[in-house]
Amino acid sequence: MPPPATLSSSSSFTLLSPPPSPSPKLPSFLLPKSHSFFHSPTRSTRLRRSFTPRCAVIEKESPETEKPETFLRESSSPTSVRSRFEKMIREAQDTVCAAIAAADGVGTFKEDVWSRPGGGGGISRVLQDGAVWEKAGVNVSVVYGVMPPEAYRAAKGAATDHKPGPVPFFAAGISSVLHPKNPFAPTLHFNYRYFETDAPPDAPGAPRQWWFGGGTDLTPAYIFEEDVKHFHSVQKNACDKFDPSFYPRFKKWCDDYFYIKHRDERRGLGGIFFDDLNDYDQEMLLSFATECANSVVPAYVPIIEKRKDTPFTEDHKAWQQLRRGRYVEFNLVYDRGTTFGLKTGGRIESILVSLPLTARWEYDHKPEEGSEEWKLLDACINPKEWV
Amino acid sequence: MPPPATLSSSSSFTLLSPPPSPSPKLPSFLLPKSHSFFHSPTRSTRLRRSFTPRCAVIEKESPETEKPETFLRESSSPTSVRSRFEKMIREAQDTVCAAIAAADGVGTFKEDVWSRPGGGGGISRVLQDGAVWEKAGVNVSVVYGVMPPEAYRAAKGAATDHKPGPVPFFAAGISSVLHPKNPFAPTLHFNYRYFETDAPPDAPGAPRQWWFGGGTDLTPAYIFEEDVKHFHSVQKNACDKFDPSFYPRFKKWCDDYFYIKHRDERRGLGGIFFDDLNDYDQEMLLSFATECANSVVPAYVPIIEKRKDTPFTEDHKAWQQLRRGRYVEFNLVYDRGTTFGLKTGGRIESILVSLPLTARWEYDHKPEEGSEEWKLLDACINPKEWV
Repeated sequence: MPPPATLSSSSSFTLLSPPPSPSPKLPSFLLPKSHSFFHSPTRSTRLRRSFTPRCAVIEKESPETEKPETFLRESSSPTSVRSRFEKMIREAQDTVCAAIAAADGVGTFKEDVWSRPGGGGGISRVLQDGAVWEKAGVNVSVVYGVMPPEAYRAAKGAATDHKPGPVPFFAAGISSVLHPKNPFAPTLHFNYRYFETDAPPDAPGAPRQWWFGGGTDLTPAYIFEEDVKHFHSVQKNACDKFDPSFYPRFKKWCDDYFYIKHRDERRGLGGIFFDDLNDYDQEMLLSFATECANSVVPAYVPIIEKRKDTPFTEDHKAWQQLRRGRYVEFNLVYDRGTTFGLKTGGRIESILVSLPLTARWEYDHKPEEGSEEWKLLDACINPKEWV
Repeated sequence: MPPPATLSSSSSFTLLSPPPSPSPKLPSFLLPKSHSFFHSPTRSTRLRRSFTPRCAVIEKESPETEKPETFLRESSSPTSVRSRFEKMIREAQDTVCAAIAAADGVGTFKEDVWSRPGGGGGISRVLQDGAVWEKAGVNVSVVYGVMPPEAYRAAKGAATDHKPGPVPFFAAGISSVLHPKNPFAPTLHFNYRYFETDAPPDAPGAPRQWWFGGGTDLTPAYIFEEDVKHFHSVQKNACDKFDPSFYPRFKKWCDDYFYIKHRDERRGLGGIFFDDLNDYDQEMLLSFATECANSVVPAYVPIIEKRKDTPFTEDHKAWQQLRRGRYVEFNLVYDRGTTFGLKTGGRIESILVSLPLTARWEYDHKPEEGSEEWKLLDACINPKEWV
C-alpha cells in the first residue's frame, strides 16, 4: 500500500552531479506538457526561448548494441528517487510490451537502445504492422544535463543580482502510443516522467526542485460506453488510493490539455493528466506514478481483447483515419513535448513514433447528426463525466 | 510585355478606408511566410505575439450562396493595384480549376463562398477523390481589417513617443495545393499574395507600405529529371522576363523556406518563393505575380498528363504516402501561414485543404542506398540546380 497523501513539499532528494556535457537534449516525453515548466506562462516563454539555441547545437545520440543495467551515473544511490523511478519505468516498459505483444499474437517489438555522449540514454521499442496494432511504441529515457542560466532564473522567479551558471538537471520518463488497426479498438497514450534540478555549482545555497508529471488517455474512433467507463474507472481507482481530489482534478487537466484549439474539440475521451506535481510527499508521488503505470495494462488490454476482431466497413475505417488525422494535428501543432522536441533536435524517430501509421484529411467532413461518428465528435467537443 | 525591372520603391497605392471591424482574421495563405512581415526576425516575433490575442477573439466567416463581382469595397477604384490583383487571382483560380478538372476528367470542384462581417471574403474550391487527383484545393481570399498598433510600430521600426492607433491593412491572395493519386505524379503548391498597410487614422503622415509574396513549388515522390527540369525552366522563364536575379534568388529562397528542420530535408524539389517584395516598381511586381500565376498550368499539367497513368506497385504508393507524411509535418510544424492561421482562428477547412487526403508514418524508415526513393530523399537533403 502506498503511504497516505500529505501536503508536504519537503523531502530528501539526491544531489545532481554536474554532468560533463554542457547541454541537454531531452526526449519529447520528458518535456513539460503543462502551461509551464515552472508554473508561470511568462516564465515558460522565457525558458523556451532561452533553451532553444543551446539545445539545437548539441551532439546526436549514438545507437548501442546492449542495454545497460542502468542509465544513471555510477555515483547514483540505488535507493534514490531517480534510481527507483528508472527501475519503475523500465519494468513498466517490459510489462506493457509483453502484454501488447501477447494480445497482438503476431507482431514483435523492435528495440533500439541509444546513449548520449554527455550521459544518459534510452530504449525505444516499436511494434509495427502487427495483427492487432498498426503501430505501438513504448519508449523509456533517462537524461541528465544542464539547463541554461535563464531557465534557472525563471525557475527561481524573482530577479537576482547574482548571475548563476548553468543548472544541473535530471529527467527520466516512459512514453507510449498504441494505435490499433480495428476502428472499434481505441488508441492509448500514456507518459510518466520525473524531473530534478540542482543548485548551480556557483550558488550552492540555491533551491533544489523535483517534479512528477504524466497521464494516461484514451482515443477511440467510436464510443462503447462500457469501454470508456472501464478505462476511466481504472484511472479513478488508481487516483483514489492516493487522494480523492486527484481523479476529478487530473481528469479535467487531461480534457484541457488534449485540446485541439483550431477544431474546438479534444483529441479523444481523456483520462488523467498532471504536470509539475511537487506539492505532495515525494515518496507518495513516486508510488502514485508507479500505480498509474501499473494501471495501463488492466485499463486498456481488456478493451482491445473485446474489440480487436469486431467486423467493420470501409466507412468505419475512413472515420478512424480522419480521427487519426486529428491525432496528428494535436501532436504536431499543440503537444509541447513533440513541438519542443522537434525544434530542439530530440531523437526524431522516438518523438514521431507517436504518429499513426496512416491518417486522412477530407475537406469539410461533417458526420451526420445522431450518427455514431457524430456521437464521438460530440463527446470530444463536450467532455463528459464517465464515472 | 511587362515593364523592365527598376529599383524604385516609390509608387502610388490606394489609400485604405478604415474598416468597421476592429480585427483581421487572415486566411493562412495571406500571411507572411518569410522570416518576417517586416524584414527583421526580431520585429516579426513582436508582431506575432501582439497579433495573436486580438485575432483569436473575432467573429466567424459566414457562408454565401453567390459569388460577388468583387470582394472590395464600393469605393475601390477598378484601376487600383488591389482591384487588379483581385481580378488576376480570380481569373487564375478559374483557369487553374478548369485545367485541373479537364485533366482529371472525372472529379469536379466543390465551391464554398464565404464573407466576413467586417468586409472581404473568399472562394474555396476543392476537388476530392477524382480520377487523377486525390485532393486539389484552389482558394482565393480578399481581406481587409486593422493591424494592432504594436504591429505597426514594428513595421515602422524605431520606437516613437507617439502612440498610434490600429493600422488599416488590405490583403488578397490565391493559394493552391494539388495532390495527385499516382505516386509518379508530383504534388504542386502555389500561392501569390498582395498586402497593403495604410497610415493609422491618427497619424496621417506615417508611411504607407505594400508588399508582394508567393511562389510555386513541386513535390514529387519520385524524380523524373525531365519533369523537374521542365518545371524549373518554366519558373526561370517567368522570372527572367522581369529580372535575371529573380530565379537564382527565389529558387534559393524556396529551398530555404520549405525546409523540415527536424529531418534536415526539404519538403520537395523546390521552385520559386519570395516574400515582402516591395523594392521594385509596383506595376512590375504586379505583372510578375501575374506571369507566375499564369505559369502554373504550363509548368505542371504537362507533367501530370505524362505520369497520371504510369503503373505502380504498393511499395511505390507507400513511399508516396511517407512523403505525404513529410508534407503534413512541414505544413503543421513550420509553415507560418498554416500555424498562424490555425492559432488565430482562420477558416480551418480552407487552411487544412493543403493537407493530403492520406499520409503515412513508419518508424525509422530508411530507403536503400541508391534506390529511387533514396535519390528523391538525397535531392531533398541536398538541393540541386535543375536548370
